[in-house]
Amino acid sequence: LNRTGREVTYLELIEHKHVDGLIFVTNHPDDGQLARLISEAGKVVVADEDVPGANAPKLFCDNEQGGYLAGRHLAEHGHRDVLFVGNTQAMISGSHRFHGLRRALCEHWRQDIAPPNYRGSYTIDFGREAARRFIDEGMPATAIFATSDEIAIGMMEVFRAAGVAIPGDVSLVGFDDVAPFHLFATPVTAVRQPVRAIGRRSLTLLLETNWQELAAPAPQELMPVELVVRESVAPPAKR
Amino acid sequence: LNRTGREVTYLELIEHKHVDGLIFVTNHPDDGQLARLISEAGKVVVADEDVPGANAPKLFCDNEQGGYLAGRHLAEHGHRDVLFVGNTQAMISGSHRFHGLRRALCEHWRQDIAPPNYRGSYTIDFGREAARRFIDEGMPATAIFATSDEIAIGMMEVFRAAGVAIPGDVSLVGFDDVAPFHLFATPVTAVRQPVRAIGRRSLTLLLETNWQELAAPAPQELMPVELVVRESVAPPAKR
Repeated sequence: LNRTGREVTYLELIEHKHVDGLIFVTNHPDDGQLARLISEAGKVVVADEDVPGANAPKLFCDNEQGGYLAGRHLAEHGHRDVLFVGNTQAMISGSHRFHGLRRALCEHWRQDIAPPNYRGSYTIDFGREAARRFIDEGMPATAIFATSDEIAIGMMEVFRAAGVAIPGDVSLVGFDDVAPFHLFATPVTAVRQPVRAIGRRSLTLLLETNWQELAAPAPQELMPVELVVRESVAPPAKR
Repeated sequence: LNRTGREVTYLELIEHKHVDGLIFVTNHPDDGQLARLISEAGKVVVADEDVPGANAPKLFCDNEQGGYLAGRHLAEHGHRDVLFVGNTQAMISGSHRFHGLRRALCEHWRQDIAPPNYRGSYTIDFGREAARRFIDEGMPATAIFATSDEIAIGMMEVFRAAGVAIPGDVSLVGFDDVAPFHLFATPVTAVRQPVRAIGRRSLTLLLETNWQELAAPAPQELMPVELVVRESVAPPAKR
């Protein structure tokens, strides 16, 4: 089964009464099929990434605020040229984190700034690829917003091998902060997702929602994020 | 539900034909109930940790060899007093990794050596607790075999805060190597589990086993491990 196929199968388990409910965490854009099935299945909480159009209680971290906190921190250290490395615009985490970054930069520098961005997936491999591209393109930014633990790890691995120093040559802010960033050679400044709180709250929503009387649209909640400042951000390197 | 209760529920799903099979990964000793249910349920592959007495195809990493590789590496660097930090003897990972370590030390030093050991669980919290105990007891070993990523991370965190240098004050070998140890301030030497290979092979066993004609005892397989040498081991610190 491909990913979507597997998700559809899980949703059918509810219809056939084999499971009591699902917390649905997807990692790819929907073609419309999932939204319809989720709305029909009921007893589904959509968490972490949105399935647009699905009528279900939804719970995300405050992606926009996370991007904003990263951008403001970088701007306050003097960065104007910040590379966004993350998921596609079709995913809310990919669009909201980007918009938050952009809003912070525009606000701080009082001008319209459109950050350059590399789009891929939340994987170590994509992080490696993005770091190689960044080097190949002559390091076209003084700072990087790497929007998942995996992306940050892949990028740091390639930078270390290539002799690109963090934060000496380029500053970096991560996102998720589930990885043990505090023990890294350069402890990584990152936006922390409240992973456990999201898990607990998703379960509570699943158990306490009155599914017979679910409003349309169903309620949506945002969990707060915080910036954990460590040592991967410094003023822009001299060129 | 407590953990065992939940596991029992999963096994009942097979009996009631709601799922086609299970790859069973437990993290606590069995009181005999799980073994009986697994044997009766059929279509279960036991992976990673044993459920003794369960008649099911089983798949583990070579825990004894992993312990041996860690012990030999430490002994070759001059360590005789090695603290084992890991799970209880009731878990095969807790007993086999310990026996492997002991075998290597006895073989190298040509005498009977019974390594001191702290027993708990594979968690960051237990790692922190073990590190504090190690310091409180006056650092009663020149090296530590921390037998999970979580334990190693918890210990390193406490050591760093307490100013205990790795490998200057104490050497450390980890186990699992799923964490990004290569990017740590002191890159961690660790026994690497073939996590993906174990996952793939478990699925293959689930799909290809002839469940009608399963032998008793069912076959058991060990997946090879390797030692990834980095920078957390040095000769014993001068006292």
